[in-house]
Amino acid sequence: MTQIKAPAAKEPSVSSAVSTINDVARLAGVSIKTVSRVMNDEPNVREETRTKVKEAAARLHYRPNLLARSLAGSRSFLIGLLYDNPSSSYVIDLQQGVIERCRQSGYHVLSEPQDSLAPDIGRAIASLLATIRLDGVILTPPLCDMAVVLDAVEAAGVPYVRVSPSLFPGRSALVEMDDTQAAYEMTQFLLGQGHRDIGFVRGHPEHGSSHRRYDGFIKAMHEAGAEPHSRRIAQGFNSFASGLEAAKALFMDAGNLPTAIFASNDEMAFGVMAYAQQTGVRVPDQVSVVGFDDTPGSMIIWPHLTTIRQPVTDLAYAAADMLLSRASADEDAPNFSDTRRELPFELVMRESAKAV
Amino acid sequence: MTQIKAPAAKEPSVSSAVSTINDVARLAGVSIKTVSRVMNDEPNVREETRTKVKEAAARLHYRPNLLARSLAGSRSFLIGLLYDNPSSSYVIDLQQGVIERCRQSGYHVLSEPQDSLAPDIGRAIASLLATIRLDGVILTPPLCDMAVVLDAVEAAGVPYVRVSPSLFPGRSALVEMDDTQAAYEMTQFLLGQGHRDIGFVRGHPEHGSSHRRYDGFIKAMHEAGAEPHSRRIAQGFNSFASGLEAAKALFMDAGNLPTAIFASNDEMAFGVMAYAQQTGVRVPDQVSVVGFDDTPGSMIIWPHLTTIRQPVTDLAYAAADMLLSRASADEDAPNFSDTRRELPFELVMRESAKAV
Repeated sequence: MTQIKAPAAKEPSVSSAVSTINDVARLAGVSIKTVSRVMNDEPNVREETRTKVKEAAARLHYRPNLLARSLAGSRSFLIGLLYDNPSSSYVIDLQQGVIERCRQSGYHVLSEPQDSLAPDIGRAIASLLATIRLDGVILTPPLCDMAVVLDAVEAAGVPYVRVSPSLFPGRSALVEMDDTQAAYEMTQFLLGQGHRDIGFVRGHPEHGSSHRRYDGFIKAMHEAGAEPHSRRIAQGFNSFASGLEAAKALFMDAGNLPTAIFASNDEMAFGVMAYAQQTGVRVPDQVSVVGFDDTPGSMIIWPHLTTIRQPVTDLAYAAADMLLSRASADEDAPNFSDTRRELPFELVMRESAKAV
Repeated sequence: MTQIKAPAAKEPSVSSAVSTINDVARLAGVSIKTVSRVMNDEPNVREETRTKVKEAAARLHYRPNLLARSLAGSRSFLIGLLYDNPSSSYVIDLQQGVIERCRQSGYHVLSEPQDSLAPDIGRAIASLLATIRLDGVILTPPLCDMAVVLDAVEAAGVPYVRVSPSLFPGRSALVEMDDTQAAYEMTQFLLGQGHRDIGFVRGHPEHGSSHRRYDGFIKAMHEAGAEPHSRRIAQGFNSFASGLEAAKALFMDAGNLPTAIFASNDEMAFGVMAYAQQTGVRVPDQVSVVGFDDTPGSMIIWPHLTTIRQPVTDLAYAAADMLLSRASADEDAPNFSDTRRELPFELVMRESAKAV
């Protein structure tokens, strides 16, 4: 298309031909390079020229082609979201937040599931980053705690932000919530409800958050002078089945039940509640049960689960904002890897816990 | 980089410089255009040349840059997945399947959530397709049933496949499962277990699948001479809360409960089970409950839910395969829009239903 398209009378129909950067340059009387600069919000364009180009683009209903923009400037307008997480609600909420923020800046998101157990995970990520130019990468657990993954991203020279990492603090920009404090406050809530004999289901030992959540629990119990007997601590592995097994151990002595169980994720709390139901233990009348994560399941079981809400969408927003401001910076932002944001969690009180 | 990189001794480290198409062309002694042709599996390259290029690419650990490939050929190697679905497990399973298949062919996937209730949804999609070149688009419910969405995609000339559409059969390539047959078979299962007095919770009236599921239920009941009284049919809206309300209506007369409830999605079945638990109705001893979809929740409630598994991953594979074979076809595939695949569902028997 070499002719300037006259703008449609009122609203261009969906099938109207798409305007090109050439059309905008002609109408504005500037070079293609200048149009590209304005579209990419690059500096060194006079305000008058910028206005002229934006007006021409608006009249022509011009939308920059991602490929063309990418060639004209140094950016690809693509952000990669790398994940390997069994919780679909966590991934989809995070993805949704990242996409929302990126869209506002004209960026698109490539979702790239990665198998964190694959022995060649580092190579797979290096190859991904060599195949497609990304302006930034967001790494989620457990990928964000794997040195081989961080090595690959750093070797490719792609800026990245980690969401809720447990290891290598200070190695990259990161967003997180305070798991220890959240578990501490949930335990304080239970103590405040008169519970003293509280059982705990630990999370998967290879997840950093498992240890932080346990630490928060123990800290609150210790401060209250209610340190739990070891038979009140069960090891889980973050799954429903492991929660069921943990409940079996914690409910072993039917005549001596704890008054509350704190499972360090929702899935295990659901397992505890299922076991209670199977064995006729009434929740919350006999035993209160609380979880951690506020997954969708917490609203479909009865009683609804008292739990801790991770600010997943806000973590996504913060991670995307960090990357986007970095990508649009003219120079390498100084100390980007020192950037760190902590976002607040929320205790969500529902029906699965009550006062003794 | 203009020098040919000697291949690393054994395994190139992650940080080794990335080979370019120039390197491969030099080593193979052919033009860049020829390398591009081989990489894109285009025809009209002699087998000998093809082998030479592939060997050079392998020696140099060359991975084609997506942008370069896209410019050299007519393809962008990007597939768009457009969704607006409240079920995160459905979206993530579908996305995972599409990404898996695309990856094998060197394609990447742009996940693009769209607000199907937005009045300018058609324009939003037209603008997306004008901004970024996609080799194909996958549309999921409810987007795949909106004429304005199909118009926008067709106007942009992008090949597309619909997943489980309810409307406009024959307008596009599609993959689906037989909702009517699935509901029919689940009802037959309940009848076979001795149930005759079966309540039904209808789904959201604006979803095509709701009507198909109801039809399958009625057909089986009719054939068995067990047509339900209208007080056994409750209207739901696919949510947990609407399932709870439906149960309230269906359990109104405590002295005259149905022996089974078929909720036309899992969320509503969870609502029915929660209401049963709140009111002391025992599932499945007094009332069997079955759902439809096999969402993750069906394994975290107790008793685990008997339900119908949609072949979501297989639907994703089939949709991606259709698009990819179309994208790699040299000519427009004849009658692409007639392509249609139906995939089998599965009845999943768990603990929430039993014989009368």
